[in-house]
Amino acid sequence: MFMEVNMEKESPEKAKKRKIDDDGDGDKAREESESFNGFKVKAVINENARQKYLFLHCTKNDEDAVVLLEKTPFDSSMTDQILSDNTKIRQTLQNDIYHTYSALLPENLNGVKATVICPASEKHIKKYTEQESFVIQETAELYTKVTLPYLEKHAFSTKWVYNILEKKKEADRIVFENADPDTGFILLPDMKWDGKDLNSLYLQAIVHKHGLKSVRDLNKSHLPLLNNILEEGADVINQEYGIPKSKLRIYIHYQPSYYHLHVHFNHINLESPGFDADRAHLLVDVIENIEMNDSYYQDKTLVYRVREQDELYKLYQDEGYFVDFPINTSISSNSSLTAAS
Amino acid sequence: MFMEVNMEKESPEKAKKRKIDDDGDGDKAREESESFNGFKVKAVINENARQKYLFLHCTKNDEDAVVLLEKTPFDSSMTDQILSDNTKIRQTLQNDIYHTYSALLPENLNGVKATVICPASEKHIKKYTEQESFVIQETAELYTKVTLPYLEKHAFSTKWVYNILEKKKEADRIVFENADPDTGFILLPDMKWDGKDLNSLYLQAIVHKHGLKSVRDLNKSHLPLLNNILEEGADVINQEYGIPKSKLRIYIHYQPSYYHLHVHFNHINLESPGFDADRAHLLVDVIENIEMNDSYYQDKTLVYRVREQDELYKLYQDEGYFVDFPINTSISSNSSLTAAS
Repeated sequence: MFMEVNMEKESPEKAKKRKIDDDGDGDKAREESESFNGFKVKAVINENARQKYLFLHCTKNDEDAVVLLEKTPFDSSMTDQILSDNTKIRQTLQNDIYHTYSALLPENLNGVKATVICPASEKHIKKYTEQESFVIQETAELYTKVTLPYLEKHAFSTKWVYNILEKKKEADRIVFENADPDTGFILLPDMKWDGKDLNSLYLQAIVHKHGLKSVRDLNKSHLPLLNNILEEGADVINQEYGIPKSKLRIYIHYQPSYYHLHVHFNHINLESPGFDADRAHLLVDVIENIEMNDSYYQDKTLVYRVREQDELYKLYQDEGYFVDFPINTSISSNSSLTAAS
Repeated sequence: MFMEVNMEKESPEKAKKRKIDDDGDGDKAREESESFNGFKVKAVINENARQKYLFLHCTKNDEDAVVLLEKTPFDSSMTDQILSDNTKIRQTLQNDIYHTYSALLPENLNGVKATVICPASEKHIKKYTEQESFVIQETAELYTKVTLPYLEKHAFSTKWVYNILEKKKEADRIVFENADPDTGFILLPDMKWDGKDLNSLYLQAIVHKHGLKSVRDLNKSHLPLLNNILEEGADVINQEYGIPKSKLRIYIHYQPSYYHLHVHFNHINLESPGFDADRAHLLVDVIENIEMNDSYYQDKTLVYRVREQDELYKLYQDEGYFVDFPINTSISSNSSLTAAS
């Protein structure tokens, strides 16, 4: 989420300033002294205890601002300094061989990354505000009645995908191609991968065939295509990166982020939020389900999560889908439990 | 992982000391002054940039020790102090409305939780050392040949489960029971849930019927049982906790952590590592797959992850399973890429 901030093209002056500011040693004099002075917190709009981030909606001089704070990871090359006398520790519990402490690290080893968007539009605030999620059980009937009309009405542009397939863009990034128009695909690194750290390896296979919107459209006629992706994809990744098949997660998203069939290849060590059981469909499962039943993905109820800003959520709400599962608006994390416990 | 440290029963003296140490205000004089003085780092045994933890294997006075460090979450009740003058910020980038900074928070707002196990046995060190993971595609044949004999040989004790079902233990924790011996189940909070925060709601439904080891054993005869769990489980959770079905993840693990059929109920907001697509099988999918094909879970290839310390990994290795997918031992995150990029 942090990484999604889109930096627009910067002027030469700004680039120069950035170079100065970005030298990372922290000792150089700054052009301007900076502080959070003047920021007033209006609301906590998102926080995550596991990932240690906190997003705030603030105002500064009557302008809206979004402040994104995230604790930095430990620098594992600094272990000697982390365990030095400069770290103050206070015991909170001791039991036999187990000791727990609250520790205060030297400031320089314990930084926070902050991103400020100011002035922030309503859209910025919405983007970083935690959204409520809901589960949809999309039956074959609901697909035909709600989801498919939505897809057809929007005819989401996949021009950028065709640019890749036609080598007009990103041609130098292609790792492998099977050029067959029906059963072929292009394999290239996902934008989220730095291309270096093999533990976070992330590639995508994009099929040459047009018109396959998602897993919903797949049947036995697509088995040669799916088997090619599974076998050639895994083979190429083993050859090029030395990662065997037993270290790969190979899956299709439903709902996908764009409606042109593509397959995700991740290193097993990558903690990808997109690998949840209500979004990721393993390619081997997809192949075997279709082998078992030609119309498996046309008949099957598919479960996925939507967020309150998603158009699909609104369409299912309009359809009355959530009436059967009314939302209890009195839910709060402080509600007392009526259950035995 | 951090929460897994098992504290043994403590003596009254220790309990008293803990009470003193645990008062949380940080100002009281300590019985003993503490520091990491004398700890020598032997190895980084695990680290996670997303969750901000770092596990170290150390020695202290020639004894082995494990040091577990984890950054604490932001305290969202302290936002005014976080954005005060006491936080030093240094700009690293500025582009139009986007500003990024590295920030140094006042020590007291930026703590680290440390757990020390000393002296640590080899088993402790192993427990906290990152393990390599592997994907197994368990075909019906491999299940019969490798997995099933392993399950039968070990006849894993489920006495503690029978204690719950027979109300010998944890009877006061039961939220709901359908007492039918074939189609009934007991619903109770999972140990991982504090029973309070509804956003991390976690319950388990444990079936009364004995002998159902896992999803592999399910067929059409179990549909009444599975439908009961799905419907009554979701209804009870809605009544007792005010959480509607559209906010629940309901799933079965394969491999499970114990071999007596049980179903997990999570609030959708809970970030549970057990919800990965290579472990969690949604209950609605299980029901529909069986309705489609009585022997779906006997015939189906099931994909799951094993870790190098797991006995199943060793058994599949002995079986020659990984020979088809040789592990390239030269893999490292610094390997240069041979692929086009």
